[in-house]
Amino acid sequence: MVEAGFGRAACRRTGCCLRVATLPAATSNLLVHREPLEEALRAAVGYLEGPADAAMRYVMGWENESGQPIDAAGKRIRPALCLFAAEAAGGSIAAAMPGAVAVELVHNFSLVHDEVQDHDAERHHRPTVWARMGEGQAINIGDLLYTRAIRALTDGAGESARRMRALGVLNIAIERMIRGQWDDIAFEGRDDVTIDDYLAMVAGKTGALLSAPLEIGAILAGASPSVSLALGRWGMHIGAAFQAQDDFLGIWGDPGQTGKSNTNDIARRKKTLPIIHALGNPGAADVVRRAYARDQLDDHDVAAVAEALKAAGSDSYCRERAREQAAEADDLLAVLEFDDATREQFRAVAAYFVERDA
Amino acid sequence: MVEAGFGRAACRRTGCCLRVATLPAATSNLLVHREPLEEALRAAVGYLEGPADAAMRYVMGWENESGQPIDAAGKRIRPALCLFAAEAAGGSIAAAMPGAVAVELVHNFSLVHDEVQDHDAERHHRPTVWARMGEGQAINIGDLLYTRAIRALTDGAGESARRMRALGVLNIAIERMIRGQWDDIAFEGRDDVTIDDYLAMVAGKTGALLSAPLEIGAILAGASPSVSLALGRWGMHIGAAFQAQDDFLGIWGDPGQTGKSNTNDIARRKKTLPIIHALGNPGAADVVRRAYARDQLDDHDVAAVAEALKAAGSDSYCRERAREQAAEADDLLAVLEFDDATREQFRAVAAYFVERDA
Repeated sequence: MVEAGFGRAACRRTGCCLRVATLPAATSNLLVHREPLEEALRAAVGYLEGPADAAMRYVMGWENESGQPIDAAGKRIRPALCLFAAEAAGGSIAAAMPGAVAVELVHNFSLVHDEVQDHDAERHHRPTVWARMGEGQAINIGDLLYTRAIRALTDGAGESARRMRALGVLNIAIERMIRGQWDDIAFEGRDDVTIDDYLAMVAGKTGALLSAPLEIGAILAGASPSVSLALGRWGMHIGAAFQAQDDFLGIWGDPGQTGKSNTNDIARRKKTLPIIHALGNPGAADVVRRAYARDQLDDHDVAAVAEALKAAGSDSYCRERAREQAAEADDLLAVLEFDDATREQFRAVAAYFVERDA
Repeated sequence: MVEAGFGRAACRRTGCCLRVATLPAATSNLLVHREPLEEALRAAVGYLEGPADAAMRYVMGWENESGQPIDAAGKRIRPALCLFAAEAAGGSIAAAMPGAVAVELVHNFSLVHDEVQDHDAERHHRPTVWARMGEGQAINIGDLLYTRAIRALTDGAGESARRMRALGVLNIAIERMIRGQWDDIAFEGRDDVTIDDYLAMVAGKTGALLSAPLEIGAILAGASPSVSLALGRWGMHIGAAFQAQDDFLGIWGDPGQTGKSNTNDIARRKKTLPIIHALGNPGAADVVRRAYARDQLDDHDVAAVAEALKAAGSDSYCRERAREQAAEADDLLAVLEFDDATREQFRAVAAYFVERDA
């Protein structure tokens, strides 16, 4: 019953993202602390009145535009990874909770700023903060969530020295995340982005905040630096696997499963991993360039691009890359000297990141 | 010679803001550590290549748009207050430096985000970051400066427990600052903002980051909580005095001294302290409302409003309020049990905040 009240619909309007907030049963070790986590997140964001505080709760998925309670929370993958790492390292959930709260609040701060930067008016069928309140207030809401993340670690329970170290790791992850976002925006105006450029960008933009939770969880659990660093590297690899799979699903995913369009990435001329891979194949590159040069891409153009990518093997390339990264993560488990049961839990989590269809 | 290389022109284009970066000799205790402070700030921001890092140095006033070295740094009032408080509390400059660096970086992060929010294309005759690089990248630069501020305290020299406390105080000040900025934006659409609303807003928007440096300096110096809290309150009052004087100068200042237009506040329909005061005077309120209802305010309208404000005593009101706040600050000196020389230094700093004409 640990999922009670969570893991249901992220969107009330259509049935299409019913699974958005749900992790599969195989990753039950990522679900098990969902309830205390959500409570700690609510305590960190607070219950103050007024539109700024309501906007923070809206972003976290607890309230709708009118301040009525809803359940539109996301998967909470990052804090789940933090708590998972802490338990694997022999620590308590209570000690790791400030780190779990901090990483999730940072994730939400980054979403709010990204939405302004990308002019995304909706996320999971809910209007974004800037679309509701203007860009200026959305910048403020992102900044506020950032302060609440820092506060979770400065004021949290547990040893002060460990929280300080965790804060240092989180802060560097945030810097890497922002630099990734910088590159992502800078790439829009460039036609010469290589696969290496792209991988470096996403390693920052999404990888840093998937790796840091594991390192932070280990630090707060009192693990040795060699363990916390190895767990951080494990997270880096599964973060890369996650992103490769995400880029795959952005074109070949089932919208009924993912809750996201599988035509948007192409229609919006994004340069995701399969696209950049295909640009290295003369035939596919030609199809992509012609389509991306149009004023507006219709369904036919999108289908033609997806077809050309498949012919160039860009779908397999993404799947292979996800598996390679999961294998690299697996190699690190040898260093980590966990017992067999714990090792299997890590493998189950890695498998989810590679195989997930939602 | 402590001012060598600093405290000169903030703007190369005109002579109008020659004094922007200069504090008067009477506040020599705020100037004395300018050189090591600037070095510590440069170390915290770093020397990395690439446009994001160059943009951070541009914001700090060390480089122009082409990355060439210039000297356009601001007055660095906030870090100076931090170092001043630390010395007064018997601590070392070295121990307080991480706090000084952090408050100045936070100030600059807030400027960059405010410029996006207010659509200000220039500051001290230099194009703002968003005007140069777009709003998305300006949001990133602000966020990056925020991470660097946190890093100054997580990685700095000195006792870890003190840095953690300082970080907690800084972080709450940042939250108050952002909430002040939220209110400032929210007030734009309101016609019923009272003087109390306004004072609460500026206490957050500018007061929090003038108070926090003093409390942080004292904490890093190892002062007792009663001393650090009293110094923070002293800073709160001189922050309020600073803002009242700022609002006075925004209408009756000499642009040759302040480096800022004295027609902008009215021309841009701002609701600063003298304006809100005048709205409580039926005759003046009528003039202000008629002028603010126009599509565009010309020089004649601005002069008429300034005249009406003067007739309503709104200029004296600002000056009185600044003096009142300085007197409240002075009362706190009795609690603080400093020696006479230190007390006089505090009075000189307070006098500067109240009497400054630049």
